[in-house]
Amino acid sequence: MYTVSPVNHTLDSEIHSRIDHKTKPLGALGELETLALQLARIQLTKASDKLALNKPTMLVFAGDHGVADYGVSIGGSEITAQMVQNFINGGAAINVFCRQNNMALEVIDCGMKTQLDDPRIINQRLGNGTKAMHKEAAMSINTVHQGFAFARELVQRHVNNGCNLLAIGEMGIGNTTAAAAVMAALTGIPVAECTGKGTGIDIVALKRKRIIIEQALLEHYSHLTNPIQILACLGGFEIVQMTGTILAAAEFGVPVLVDGFIASVAALAAVELAPAVRDYLIFSHESDENGHRRLLLRLNARPMLRLGLRLGEGTGAALALPLLQAAVAFYNDMASFAEAGVTSVVEPVVNSGAA
Amino acid sequence: MYTVSPVNHTLDSEIHSRIDHKTKPLGALGELETLALQLARIQLTKASDKLALNKPTMLVFAGDHGVADYGVSIGGSEITAQMVQNFINGGAAINVFCRQNNMALEVIDCGMKTQLDDPRIINQRLGNGTKAMHKEAAMSINTVHQGFAFARELVQRHVNNGCNLLAIGEMGIGNTTAAAAVMAALTGIPVAECTGKGTGIDIVALKRKRIIIEQALLEHYSHLTNPIQILACLGGFEIVQMTGTILAAAEFGVPVLVDGFIASVAALAAVELAPAVRDYLIFSHESDENGHRRLLLRLNARPMLRLGLRLGEGTGAALALPLLQAAVAFYNDMASFAEAGVTSVVEPVVNSGAA
Repeated sequence: MYTVSPVNHTLDSEIHSRIDHKTKPLGALGELETLALQLARIQLTKASDKLALNKPTMLVFAGDHGVADYGVSIGGSEITAQMVQNFINGGAAINVFCRQNNMALEVIDCGMKTQLDDPRIINQRLGNGTKAMHKEAAMSINTVHQGFAFARELVQRHVNNGCNLLAIGEMGIGNTTAAAAVMAALTGIPVAECTGKGTGIDIVALKRKRIIIEQALLEHYSHLTNPIQILACLGGFEIVQMTGTILAAAEFGVPVLVDGFIASVAALAAVELAPAVRDYLIFSHESDENGHRRLLLRLNARPMLRLGLRLGEGTGAALALPLLQAAVAFYNDMASFAEAGVTSVVEPVVNSGAA
Repeated sequence: MYTVSPVNHTLDSEIHSRIDHKTKPLGALGELETLALQLARIQLTKASDKLALNKPTMLVFAGDHGVADYGVSIGGSEITAQMVQNFINGGAAINVFCRQNNMALEVIDCGMKTQLDDPRIINQRLGNGTKAMHKEAAMSINTVHQGFAFARELVQRHVNNGCNLLAIGEMGIGNTTAAAAVMAALTGIPVAECTGKGTGIDIVALKRKRIIIEQALLEHYSHLTNPIQILACLGGFEIVQMTGTILAAAEFGVPVLVDGFIASVAALAAVELAPAVRDYLIFSHESDENGHRRLLLRLNARPMLRLGLRLGEGTGAALALPLLQAAVAFYNDMASFAEAGVTSVVEPVVNSGAA
């Protein structure tokens, strides 16, 4: 369906050499070196070229969940639209962090229960909230494909506009429940290990949340055979469109900065659909949500930040952007031993296999 | 000697309330909330005031070490001056990250073996490198006090200039050896647990480094009774001036963003001299250097970043600045539930003791 090419490794020895000859001990910039290598593989045609992050853009996908009526969250579905209004008004955490880091912000209504009448909200609605997944499929297979089509148009527009770094975040009361269910179905990891307190439910609500997820998995047992079916039965409109965004971005060769637990579940679905997608994913933040660490291990991902965030909205991704820019800056602008007249403290090992 | 006042806790309930009424679940911004609380305690006269980080300034302290002649580093002492020249020319990692994050950078010669003739280097020289600590005291007690006096003048100048956030980093071949020795003497933690591979020595050099530190501790055993004596016997000119900078900054009520292992050892010495200093310290980065984690535990510190850096220069602190700015930005600019018209998902708990 999506034709994603793995990144090109033919210039690896040149890229390693450029990094290793900078005026620092070998490997001393740690994970920033790994990031620079990943971006260089994605962007470069020649290893002497500079890397660039152009028009970094945060896409916040909002959607509502039928399951939210069953006591799995600290608030009701009305909060989704209220918070989207807050995004549009510029008052939420994601606004503050995007402004601080000069990141463009776009809010996409993927299917909230309440449609807001504001032209600044991108309308990619797939319905008025999903169905309650423990009763019936959250959405149809066709709806999943429609979500992917919306996402592809969105990515195409930003790529045409010159953007070469997308970030994804979300807002949707009930979406940690949907995400945990999708994770459990995709991975086979026990529900208890996939399910957490979301934005702060108590232990009684947590038990209810786990039972509802178990019910949903049982309800749809015979259909949970591939990622598309799993997204249809258990997913959310925002989760589907994040998955589609990642698939399309990777197809266009654009890296995606992935926020917390829910965005990471969308990333896993995309990787299951097209494994080469993994080369284009940059994980920003390990959240406090139970299940996120397991999920990141499954994705072989080591996020840049671990700050105890559990807010979503894309906040972790927005906060990580300066580190990505730092990786680009050292790769582009740091002097080599030869340029600086500094005694090379190591004989750089080319093709060391460090990644 | 230094009169450091603990931060004021009388406004804590107002500060907590302001943070808890922002449009997010309680505690959902994790460590950024802890940072905002710390800065608010340091800066505020009223909880309705805004926080501000004015003229954030990176101070990089350079010095040489007699012990560097004994095979404890990957390079020789000539690299200290070469790298300082690189700092002045703008080609090092710390230059790149300071430029990226709009941080002023000042390089202080605390006593390199080679004095560079460049007016952009602040001359606070305490000698031509320390003495080899396993043979004799690295410096005299008077020299430690002279270093503190230099540091105090430096801090006074920046405070007078309107700076209210200082960051500290260092450059000095051999200084992880001195820092590990100071840590062992201050804490009683075994030398093997304080000593690491620095910027990348092999296992043979690591054994030699540990033996030299053990020799130094034995040589000065009867004198290692207080932090001043410990700094004199085992320290470095740059370590002493970082300690003095922290003491002076805390006295002036200015927070200090602490870089990696060596800066953290200076921080520990300052806290031992004046425990209230701890209130003004912000730890930026947990490095890969063996001993840093133990040291951070001793300081009850949880750094913002863990990126596998082992470069020094202040790089971890420069990379952490945007997170500190994010803490300030959410505290100042995020909407409250009431302002945004969002249903409050929690009854904020005032005086919860969260910190």
